[in-house]
Amino acid sequence: MVRPAANTLHIAVLGVTGYAGAELARLLLTHPRLAQTPPLFFGRESETLSIKLTSLHPQLSGLPNADDLSVSPFNWEQLQREGIEVLFLATPHEQARELAPIALSYGIKVIDLSAAWRLQHAPNRAIYKLEDTPATDTLQKTAVYGSPELHGPAIASAQLIANPGCYATSIILALAPLLRANMVDLNIGIIADAKSGVSGAGKALTPNNSFMYAADNLSAYAVFGHRHTGELLEQLGLTSDQIQFTPHLLPIPRGILSTIYIRLNEPGSIKSIQDTFDEFYASSPMVRVRRSPALPQIQHVVRTNFCDLGFQLSPDGKRLVVISCLDNLLKGASSQAVQNMNLMAGWHEIEGLL
Amino acid sequence: MVRPAANTLHIAVLGVTGYAGAELARLLLTHPRLAQTPPLFFGRESETLSIKLTSLHPQLSGLPNADDLSVSPFNWEQLQREGIEVLFLATPHEQARELAPIALSYGIKVIDLSAAWRLQHAPNRAIYKLEDTPATDTLQKTAVYGSPELHGPAIASAQLIANPGCYATSIILALAPLLRANMVDLNIGIIADAKSGVSGAGKALTPNNSFMYAADNLSAYAVFGHRHTGELLEQLGLTSDQIQFTPHLLPIPRGILSTIYIRLNEPGSIKSIQDTFDEFYASSPMVRVRRSPALPQIQHVVRTNFCDLGFQLSPDGKRLVVISCLDNLLKGASSQAVQNMNLMAGWHEIEGLL
Amino acid sequence: MVRPAANTLHIAVLGVTGYAGAELARLLLTHPRLAQTPPLFFGRESETLSIKLTSLHPQLSGLPNADDLSVSPFNWEQLQREGIEVLFLATPHEQARELAPIALSYGIKVIDLSAAWRLQHAPNRAIYKLEDTPATDTLQKTAVYGSPELHGPAIASAQLIANPGCYATSIILALAPLLRANMVDLNIGIIADAKSGVSGAGKALTPNNSFMYAADNLSAYAVFGHRHTGELLEQLGLTSDQIQFTPHLLPIPRGILSTIYIRLNEPGSIKSIQDTFDEFYASSPMVRVRRSPALPQIQHVVRTNFCDLGFQLSPDGKRLVVISCLDNLLKGASSQAVQNMNLMAGWHEIEGLL
Amino acid sequence: MVRPAANTLHIAVLGVTGYAGAELARLLLTHPRLAQTPPLFFGRESETLSIKLTSLHPQLSGLPNADDLSVSPFNWEQLQREGIEVLFLATPHEQARELAPIALSYGIKVIDLSAAWRLQHAPNRAIYKLEDTPATDTLQKTAVYGSPELHGPAIASAQLIANPGCYATSIILALAPLLRANMVDLNIGIIADAKSGVSGAGKALTPNNSFMYAADNLSAYAVFGHRHTGELLEQLGLTSDQIQFTPHLLPIPRGILSTIYIRLNEPGSIKSIQDTFDEFYASSPMVRVRRSPALPQIQHVVRTNFCDLGFQLSPDGKRLVVISCLDNLLKGASSQAVQNMNLMAGWHEIEGLL
Repeated sequence: MVRPAANTLHIAVLGVTGYAGAELARLLLTHPRLAQTPPLFFGRESETLSIKLTSLHPQLSGLPNADDLSVSPFNWEQLQREGIEVLFLATPHEQARELAPIALSYGIKVIDLSAAWRLQHAPNRAIYKLEDTPATDTLQKTAVYGSPELHGPAIASAQLIANPGCYATSIILALAPLLRANMVDLNIGIIADAKSGVSGAGKALTPNNSFMYAADNLSAYAVFGHRHTGELLEQLGLTSDQIQFTPHLLPIPRGILSTIYIRLNEPGSIKSIQDTFDEFYASSPMVRVRRSPALPQIQHVVRTNFCDLGFQLSPDGKRLVVISCLDNLLKGASSQAVQNMNLMAGWHEIEGLL
Repeated sequence: MVRPAANTLHIAVLGVTGYAGAELARLLLTHPRLAQTPPLFFGRESETLSIKLTSLHPQLSGLPNADDLSVSPFNWEQLQREGIEVLFLATPHEQARELAPIALSYGIKVIDLSAAWRLQHAPNRAIYKLEDTPATDTLQKTAVYGSPELHGPAIASAQLIANPGCYATSIILALAPLLRANMVDLNIGIIADAKSGVSGAGKALTPNNSFMYAADNLSAYAVFGHRHTGELLEQLGLTSDQIQFTPHLLPIPRGILSTIYIRLNEPGSIKSIQDTFDEFYASSPMVRVRRSPALPQIQHVVRTNFCDLGFQLSPDGKRLVVISCLDNLLKGASSQAVQNMNLMAGWHEIEGLL
Repeated sequence: MVRPAANTLHIAVLGVTGYAGAELARLLLTHPRLAQTPPLFFGRESETLSIKLTSLHPQLSGLPNADDLSVSPFNWEQLQREGIEVLFLATPHEQARELAPIALSYGIKVIDLSAAWRLQHAPNRAIYKLEDTPATDTLQKTAVYGSPELHGPAIASAQLIANPGCYATSIILALAPLLRANMVDLNIGIIADAKSGVSGAGKALTPNNSFMYAADNLSAYAVFGHRHTGELLEQLGLTSDQIQFTPHLLPIPRGILSTIYIRLNEPGSIKSIQDTFDEFYASSPMVRVRRSPALPQIQHVVRTNFCDLGFQLSPDGKRLVVISCLDNLLKGASSQAVQNMNLMAGWHEIEGLL
Repeated sequence: MVRPAANTLHIAVLGVTGYAGAELARLLLTHPRLAQTPPLFFGRESETLSIKLTSLHPQLSGLPNADDLSVSPFNWEQLQREGIEVLFLATPHEQARELAPIALSYGIKVIDLSAAWRLQHAPNRAIYKLEDTPATDTLQKTAVYGSPELHGPAIASAQLIANPGCYATSIILALAPLLRANMVDLNIGIIADAKSGVSGAGKALTPNNSFMYAADNLSAYAVFGHRHTGELLEQLGLTSDQIQFTPHLLPIPRGILSTIYIRLNEPGSIKSIQDTFDEFYASSPMVRVRRSPALPQIQHVVRTNFCDLGFQLSPDGKRLVVISCLDNLLKGASSQAVQNMNLMAGWHEIEGLL
């Protein structure tokens, strides 16, 4: 993309009522490039609420423009009238599947935080029951998986960004360098034992995200069938035999830690592993690679856009444990979306994210 | 009550699906007097579920009889057929208001964990929108407020026990000794600043008992209008000007701590206050009075039937802070109900509660 | 202060190892005015460590300049050599009492986060066992209590800022408007029931800040003798009979909620109370006054520099409950210190704080 | 063991100050067989404290005999004078290595909760730096690993019980049935990803068991070198290449969940796996095998002596995930010790444990 970076962008957010939506609103309100052009905020299509933004999210009060803004029922006319250039979708995936094509038809770029456009292979999409038509098939091929560390240039020129899943981001960033370097024994297979805070389950009230279920507890779920598996397979080029992913529900509000078990093709050295990660992420300011044996922990990444990676190698050099941490609402959702927006606008990818 | 204590009782529980119901089930299953006569368990009237008890509450598996028991739709025929003597009601208060008279008409005693029968004064009942008829008015007068420390003899011979509220138990036990001794300056008024774990809000899913609302948070609610206020006024003989009660939602599963601010009529001594508490509770094994300046804390009472009391006196002897702690699901609900059952059966009040 | 605002400041921080020190480091590293002049960071005088900043606080890695900075043993020569203009002290109060006069003698302004210089009245200082000499007496009189909402102009021209205590900030901001308006019945006295997260206790390992003590617990402490009481009395112009302050330890990392009970001199209206707060804080961007009956909660202020205030009035207009929330490490310590720095530099007080 | 079961036992506990010691005290005080012969409680050898038991552990007040008991400095004379038959050691392993032989020489049986006597192979003991002499070598061979589900008969006649580690218990009980049935492909190797609450780290104050470190966090530790690994290898008959165990620190007070990844020798069926577990634990009342796909969670086992097991099988029948949960202070320490005591006394193993 060679066009000069704009000074600002006209932004709208659809679906500001949820947890990721609220964080997205906070990031956009405090983004230095958007100070003069505050975003438009909309409820989800089903939500006809018209309410002050700070009544919905009192924690945003006092941020630039926040107290003057409202959350309105969504309508395309307003988007066009106000010259919206980028639309963030923080809606259920079914809705995002319908809305993205319309936005694009109006010349509005889309950053979709749902799973609607993440998956190129129909069988992987099947689990989401997404509609497939010739038109969506065509559009799907143009969607860019919004992992700035893997697809930065494609993101910069994309019209439709499929913002990655939180678990998927955590595991993909841990594995991509090793797989690209052909270091992993894929006959043995990879184990990704992942643990997430409760906000990962969204804001809809369910027994499992009640305080009494989640507090002082730990539970595994979706053991052989979590929906993010498709993203892992596609982005990492693996078959379902080659990686096993088990999520757990942690008794904390936010944060993911993934413990990833790898058998190496050949006995490795700490230095060779460290170099592999360092080189892969040399130009990625939002990935922090710790010096082995130091390991990431959730507390270091919560409320940041960083993904922290660290590893330890078995004494015989054959087995590797990689730990990956991020904030599921930020690097796993809204701040990664803003990172993508920065790239699309030609700004530095970290603007507004530190 | 002079009739000899029975060896056992035939018990039924209506409303075993909630938190207090599950704890009640646990206590009854492990009660030494009930080993040969396991209780009948029913869902609430609106719940037509028929399910194994341990499918509903896996944590009860392995307890005596637990794996053989079911939770059935409620029906009076079964109660009569099986000779039920005591019915625990762990239902919404509207239901308890309807069911208690029917049970009593069948000769079945009732221990009602709801607020349906706690309040003698109609204005205090109004907040619960309870039906008042001549029949309920008459029955109401016979209901005994199930605070074993205050009304032990009346409980022993009661047909209908109104099991106290959790906040109310905590505050009443802290204040009763001082008020009976006329030590409190009621012109100034009492402040009861109370904090409760999330289970106090019940199992129905609401935004405020979601993990994301309650965790890492603290919030006050029902500031000038919590429903338990009526119990405080009636049991302590106070007017609404004389006590101000403010509940807060703590980010813990269970436990209440009440911090109670009292101005004394006359400057007191630590010894006189300590003696007042000690004497009042000399025969109450479930109230533990700490030696000032030691204070109770929630961790000491959680998962027990104890109410812990402690206090500190200002250097000038005029102002007193009393701290009261209990487990809202146990002493504040189900274990106090079992304590009442023990008294009604002529057993020692602590049986099955340590 | 009429001198023009500088573009930047040369800053040093003594005591970056603790929780407030780490937060202060984060705020200074991301402060837009300090991007070209990263602060010098020192351990406490007793700590001779020389270590990379991001080894000490891995969560700071990736912030501007952070990975290039070290934490060094403190020495005055370096401060002078590098032209330090403002020294933050995040040390125990005994040390701050010794160091502040030395810094001032070198022409370096001081923002002291300890209690060393907060108290003008010797009896209030006595509890801290602070040294009193004619020199410290003279200096004490020049110290400005760093509450920007109360003493903004004095802060702007101060040489020595005594940054307020966390509990004290919470309670003072709640009461100052009402006391200034003579609305409070001081014969009855004020009750401030305050609850704080564990970070308020500092980083030194003690039984009471261990996870096993604090988690799932609540406990009152320092019932008639918390050290912050002196700040309340001096800043609010009260006698010790007129306010009673009881702190509690909450099972959360950070955040304070104070529930404050007030009897009004004359029955008030919601509007009059709301107006009193609104007018008092009309020019204070870091205090957010909620519309009654909405109340603050800890979750809304954590990780921000805001103090949130809200209130409810009894139906008869005589009794008032004010709720005040802030983050004890930020508005209660480090971000309030930065707010003070902004005022001293002639910058807008919120710079770098949103 | 054919001698008739005694009605009671004379018990002493050395090391009642820690978390497991406090739980052990609670279990022994409420044990129906010990009501007439309350245990003697001692501090650790280094602790010369003489204190009321309920001053040390206020939560025990009100339990049978508790308020009359003291914790005394340890001395052998008193043990002999009072005819102690079983000594529980809840001390560091170095101390337990010294004390057990002395107790046995006095004819006192020992249940050691430390790791001192768990390991038969010197290399596995080396990590604990335990003293090895000909005498300890001989004694070591007689020590019985106190897993009632694996070694019930040997426990019944043992003089010296090495009570298992908490992580080890969790993983061994999950794997023993499958390994005994030769179902596990040991060429691939087993992954045991385990997560424990903070009490597992003991009561000594360390940075990592402070509230501010552990709360809202998750971290892996001891990745290729946790000390419990030796127990796994010896009890399961595995080599260190065949199992990889990674512990994590959960932000909860107590409870362990282990997620265990197994490749099967041959594709299995849910029924065959279920039967394997059911048959293995048919006579083990403290192990609860859940029906697949139901899985254990920590909340179901906390404050109980149960170990819950559950599993799910991949659609192709080749990969198995077993989840194992227990309370690290109970089944992972003190209640398993009481279970062993019950077996040694000829009582039912669950007495006093429900």
